[in-house]
Amino acid sequence: MNINRQWLLAKRPHGLVGVDNFEYTETPIPEPGDGEVLVRNLYFSFDPTQRGWMEDRPSYLPPVALGEPMRAGTIGQVVSSKNANFTAGDVVQTTGGWQDFVVIAPDQAVMGLNKVPAGISPEMMMSVLGVTGLTAYWGLLDLGQPKAGETVLVSGAAGATGSVAGQIARIKGCRVVGIAGGPDKCAWLKNEAGFDEVIDYKNENVNQRIAETCPNKVDVFFDNVGGDILESALNHINMRARVVLCGGISGYNATQPTPGPTNLMNLVIMRARMEGFIVIDYMNRSNTAITELLNWIQNDGLLYQVDVQEGFEHIPNTLQRLFTGQNLGKQLLKTGEPS
Amino acid sequence: MNINRQWLLAKRPHGLVGVDNFEYTETPIPEPGDGEVLVRNLYFSFDPTQRGWMEDRPSYLPPVALGEPMRAGTIGQVVSSKNANFTAGDVVQTTGGWQDFVVIAPDQAVMGLNKVPAGISPEMMMSVLGVTGLTAYWGLLDLGQPKAGETVLVSGAAGATGSVAGQIARIKGCRVVGIAGGPDKCAWLKNEAGFDEVIDYKNENVNQRIAETCPNKVDVFFDNVGGDILESALNHINMRARVVLCGGISGYNATQPTPGPTNLMNLVIMRARMEGFIVIDYMNRSNTAITELLNWIQNDGLLYQVDVQEGFEHIPNTLQRLFTGQNLGKQLLKTGEPS
Repeated sequence: MNINRQWLLAKRPHGLVGVDNFEYTETPIPEPGDGEVLVRNLYFSFDPTQRGWMEDRPSYLPPVALGEPMRAGTIGQVVSSKNANFTAGDVVQTTGGWQDFVVIAPDQAVMGLNKVPAGISPEMMMSVLGVTGLTAYWGLLDLGQPKAGETVLVSGAAGATGSVAGQIARIKGCRVVGIAGGPDKCAWLKNEAGFDEVIDYKNENVNQRIAETCPNKVDVFFDNVGGDILESALNHINMRARVVLCGGISGYNATQPTPGPTNLMNLVIMRARMEGFIVIDYMNRSNTAITELLNWIQNDGLLYQVDVQEGFEHIPNTLQRLFTGQNLGKQLLKTGEPS
Repeated sequence: MNINRQWLLAKRPHGLVGVDNFEYTETPIPEPGDGEVLVRNLYFSFDPTQRGWMEDRPSYLPPVALGEPMRAGTIGQVVSSKNANFTAGDVVQTTGGWQDFVVIAPDQAVMGLNKVPAGISPEMMMSVLGVTGLTAYWGLLDLGQPKAGETVLVSGAAGATGSVAGQIARIKGCRVVGIAGGPDKCAWLKNEAGFDEVIDYKNENVNQRIAETCPNKVDVFFDNVGGDILESALNHINMRARVVLCGGISGYNATQPTPGPTNLMNLVIMRARMEGFIVIDYMNRSNTAITELLNWIQNDGLLYQVDVQEGFEHIPNTLQRLFTGQNLGKQLLKTGEPS
């Protein structure tokens, strides 16, 4: 292969992100300068937050510019290096974007350029030990502060972040209730991932089912969804509850501003807290989290699921899978394996 | 006087609370039993939270029952006592309700039965040293945690709670911006209470004016209002901002659920926190707060305003003044003075 295939951001989205927001192109393979590393991307991560990066508005990272390759987390292999810390053949994690090849200046890359430890598969490194697993870990433990015996409610519970957050809560001795869409996801949560109860938001009355499944009310709500589900959860919070705002996927593709919950005063009545966070802030403590997550995988049955699509040409429609709820677990796409 | 005038809750409110929600009646003066105290109410406190007490729904206190005297904070004077801790003539603060006389069992009263210290006027005890001042103190300091040099934005800034919260922030070395309704309130805040900037929500574009008056963004938002003003404030929060949910007066008289802010995701992007509280939880630490507030009144120019109506017959329409924004400072009504 001597060309660099790319998917560029061609048009800012309005409503549901589509294939037509991106443009395919082919460019020469770039050359690394001094201190830089040329990486061939092999695994691509798909995350709801990418939808926000496509908008032209201030956020925790600058918007992707029109005409640039779409920003994405990647795992790849070093092709050539002019940086003493990396050599050809290293398997590395970075933010390589939607392209076959990328030149990375390790100090300047979003979230850096990090070698994948031996024995850790790309699937594991990009899910339970990657951004989504770390998001679950820090959001639940640092903000949610669950105590044994408390009730933890998770929305987007079958997703890559929600499923890990719920299982950590289970390992911490909490009663765990998950909200997910459809019988397959709900069955996996209850039968495999050890959730105490599940709520199928596509087929059940969420507000009523929270009341039924959380008889002692909700001490921690780990929210990936926002909108009506957040409102329903706020109806059932316990005294001094913690609402961890991880994401709000229900509103990411909205064309109009989505009204917030009508019942924020429940935060007052219940002396409760709602707090947001971005996992980037915790990256300097990733080793702590990864060590503990690995231990739970090996000793406490922490499961993770990956949904691996294949083929560079399918990258744009794989992003859509996140917003239509087609993925079960962490959405990835691979174009090859490290050699 | 040998009758007990009362205003009973006659009808639960729908929309703006009105005189017709209450019914006037006259009953015999009650007799205290063992351990109880008969108090003549002289000063009545009017608080936005009373609107919530009139609704038949769970909250931090049980609803007022139909046919019962309306619940209200009061200062009065002990007429007769069968409790060793109180004697006739004591000036006391309690929750005496909308009636001339009340029998109080001190252990069972909401917020107890407390003697007013010598030298403290009823006006001071029911405003800056009472529930509204303590609400400002604990909400701002315990939840808001303002640091010198930070920007503190206060809504309902000319109210009994907001004006004290803003002045405490000023005393703590913060830049303080207040949102209030109308030129008189705004002038008082800027010229008397020492707010750095004021926004007149009745005559100015709040969102735009927050941007102008808070060039370093908002570190603490002390919110008494909710609704559109909360949404505007969330547009301008700083990293790790604290949103103190004290009240939501904009929605208290709504007949339909009021949509919440569309921009809660700003809490995520800015790693910010929104938290509610009820001052009752802090009552066992009131002495600390009162000592410090008195010191600020004497040494740091902490001002408080009271709006004292007169006449038992005007109690119901005095409650309405809160929701139409007629009061400047703490709304009280007196029917007499301690002898």
